[in-house]
Amino acid sequence: MIGPEIERLIQLLGRLPGLGPRSARRVALHLLKKREVLMQPLSAALSDAARAIKPCTSCGNLDTVDPCSICADPRRDAGLICVVEDIGDLWAMERGSIFSGRYHVLGGTLSALDGIGPDELNIGQLLERVKAGGVREIIVATNATVDGQTTAHYLAERLANTNVPVTRLAHGVPVGGELDWLDDGTLATAFKARRAL
Amino acid sequence: MIGPEIERLIQLLGRLPGLGPRSARRVALHLLKKREVLMQPLSAALSDAARAIKPCTSCGNLDTVDPCSICADPRRDAGLICVVEDIGDLWAMERGSIFSGRYHVLGGTLSALDGIGPDELNIGQLLERVKAGGVREIIVATNATVDGQTTAHYLAERLANTNVPVTRLAHGVPVGGELDWLDDGTLATAFKARRAL
Repeated sequence: MIGPEIERLIQLLGRLPGLGPRSARRVALHLLKKREVLMQPLSAALSDAARAIKPCTSCGNLDTVDPCSICADPRRDAGLICVVEDIGDLWAMERGSIFSGRYHVLGGTLSALDGIGPDELNIGQLLERVKAGGVREIIVATNATVDGQTTAHYLAERLANTNVPVTRLAHGVPVGGELDWLDDGTLATAFKARRAL
Repeated sequence: MIGPEIERLIQLLGRLPGLGPRSARRVALHLLKKREVLMQPLSAALSDAARAIKPCTSCGNLDTVDPCSICADPRRDAGLICVVEDIGDLWAMERGSIFSGRYHVLGGTLSALDGIGPDELNIGQLLERVKAGGVREIIVATNATVDGQTTAHYLAERLANTNVPVTRLAHGVPVGGELDWLDDGTLATAFKARRAL
């Protein structure tokens, strides 16, 4: 009744994160109503990006150039490497403009449950970068989840013999957070890591 | 930092209903990671649908053929016309398989606030269809909102001199609904419209 083109569009939209069958239909209808101003530009943007974007062979970031614009930027400190799980985490760091060094994207975490070992991650390339010299600090910014922490400890072990200091992000009460709503683990960590006021 | 292609993609994705800047970034990243299996097929599906779909000159539905496959189906009763606000409402009726007649899509509702009058809606074409003869009943299935009800009453007035019976969907307790959670208006309407058990 809907026609195979719309059916296929709804089916593909339903595979995007955060969209179910109902919201995929809603998005499809919205697109069909805004054919010139949204649907055709989106189709073009998707194929443009799919064609232009490639992974950076140095850090694993996605960009139109290789090495990526961050790795190629001479103003960014090549002596600091921030290790993140995913490109989304790199984007989050960049949005905050809190870091002026370079990145290394692992492409996931170690996970016994999902059967992801060190070989599935972009770790070998990180060791190469460190061995090439000039690195003064490695900041491990994996997520504060079990898998993220496991990966952080594994990285610290693998990097131990390079004599480059390995640090991790601080744990504690998030800015704006209320103690009453905080989980016990965070509260205990924040208490232990208390600092002079 | 992200590259103009990805920026543009995120910006366009953020204009889809239900997606904000954060979820648009998440969707863009997911697409970039699944370039072959999702991103390129979605781009092709969008441009295919944008090219193939056209509005039905009879009822206002969107389909690859004109008149649409519902209007062209000889098994569907041409004597019953169900008037809906939007194509999404038509899809909802069709999913339920509760109606075997034909549709008429208004393309919105009358709205004093948004400055939408009868000329902005697909009402003239509905009157043409009724004048052409053979219509035994018009079921007005606009939403149970203020604008939807206003539009229903306006349609009933416009259709009064055609001598075709105009009906509307019943109001009442939704199936599976609990009285305790129902708004007063629905409860009062359901009480007034009570039927023999």
